[in-house]
Formats: sequence, structure tokens, C-alpha cells
Amino acid sequence: MDAQLSNLKFDSAGLIPAIIQDAKTGEVLMMAWMNKDSLDKTIQTGKTHFFSRSRGKLWLKGESSGHVQTVKSIAVDCDQDVLLVKVEQVGAACHEGYYSCFFREYQKGAGDLKVVGKRVFEPEKVYGK
Amino acid sequence: MDAQLSNLKFDSAGLIPAIIQDAKTGEVLMMAWMNKDSLDKTIQTGKTHFFSRSRGKLWLKGESSGHVQTVKSIAVDCDQDVLLVKVEQVGAACHEGYYSCFFREYQKGAGDLKVVGKRVFEPEKVYGK
Repeated sequence: MDAQLSNLKFDSAGLIPAIIQDAKTGEVLMMAWMNKDSLDKTIQTGKTHFFSRSRGKLWLKGESSGHVQTVKSIAVDCDQDVLLVKVEQVGAACHEGYYSCFFREYQKGAGDLKVVGKRVFEPEKVYGK
Repeated sequence: MDAQLSNLKFDSAGLIPAIIQDAKTGEVLMMAWMNKDSLDKTIQTGKTHFFSRSRGKLWLKGESSGHVQTVKSIAVDCDQDVLLVKVEQVGAACHEGYYSCFFREYQKGAGDLKVVGKRVFEPEKVYGK
């Protein structure tokens, strides 16, 4: 790994949270986890790669849907334990079809979370059934 | 806790990551961890509260510096295991004096992380020595 990133603090599972933000609009799209390999791969290819904790493996964001993210910049926080990656998003970030994964809001006094995001695609058409 | 938030997934330590974003500019300011108590307190008071993993206790963001964050909205991601909190920031978010904690960028081929953020205050004046 590049010496610039040698002070990154990965957690006890070898992971670091990566916040993904739309480089143009500033909209926060998602948060996912990277290990060293997925960060290396992200830098080498210019496309975001993450480590899936549930599947225990590296994945290219968009590998099923085609909704890849082209990296525009990578920032590191003061404690060097969180990454902020600005991207150009193809399609939509969320597997539920919304542009951002943060498509629901808490509102005091409401019965349920309120959908505030815009739906860009129908998941069953992109992923099959 | 409010029924709307009953499906939130806290990790094995009882924590959930909260991404903090400037409500006006969209700048991502920081990421910190909340437990149920700190989320309750955030909702009740309208000021962000977090759980410090190193100090093992709840803290009000800005309790030392006065740099509090007034909550404008709270969004939940598709998996309900990350929060996105939009705020109005007093002063600056970062204890190192920068408006955002993500004040350094990785740049291919550079020797070191590059400071790209703006410094708003001198830490030694705010926190003492």
C-alpha cells in the first residue's frame, strides 16, 4: 500500500468505513467497508471496491447491476480511521433502486420512516428475481 | 426509543456509525458512533451526541469547544445500519481546527496526504494546552 496510507487505522477485523459521496451534488450515497485489498483495488482501477462482511469477500460496486462508481477523490479523516470517497455514480447507489441508500428519514411524531429519496430503477428489472 | 427506529441495527458493541453532513453545503464533516442513549439524546435535545469508544462514555459534540451541531434531519440507510445526520455546525467539526475532519486527501504519486481543508480555528486557543 502507498506510504501515504500507511497510517490508516483498520479495525480489529481489518476494515475501515468508507463514506461514498456524489462528487457533483454532494449527496451522500452509501457507506461500506474496505479492507487493504479493496482500497488497493479501488486506487488501481479507479472504481470503488469494498469488502462484504456478510459474504466475506471483496466486491466491485456495480458488479451485478452495472452501477459502478468512478473515484474522483479520496479523503482521510483526522483520526485516519474513516475514508471519504467522492465518486461519479452510474445509475444509482442503492440496491433498492434509490439514488442514495439514505432514502428514508426519521421524523419526530411520524409512525414510520418517511421515504424522501428518488427511485431511479426497479430492482427486479436490474437484478432479476 | 421511537418505534420508527426499532429496526436499526446496532453492532455487537451496541453502536451504529453516524455520518455528519453540513445541511447547507453538503460537506461531510465527520463520522462518529452512536449507541441508543446517544441517539435518544440527539433526538431529544436536537444537538448531536455520540458514544466515545476510547473513553467509554456519551459525549455532547462541542462540550469542550462550544462547537455544537444542531440537527436538521436524520436519515437511515437501506440496511438500517448507518445514520446520516444533517446539521448546522457552530465553529468547526474537527478538533484539529478544520471545518471538516476530512481535511486531507490522498493523491496518487504524492509523498504525503495533502491538506485540502480550511483551518477555522487554532486548537490550542480553543482547548488550551
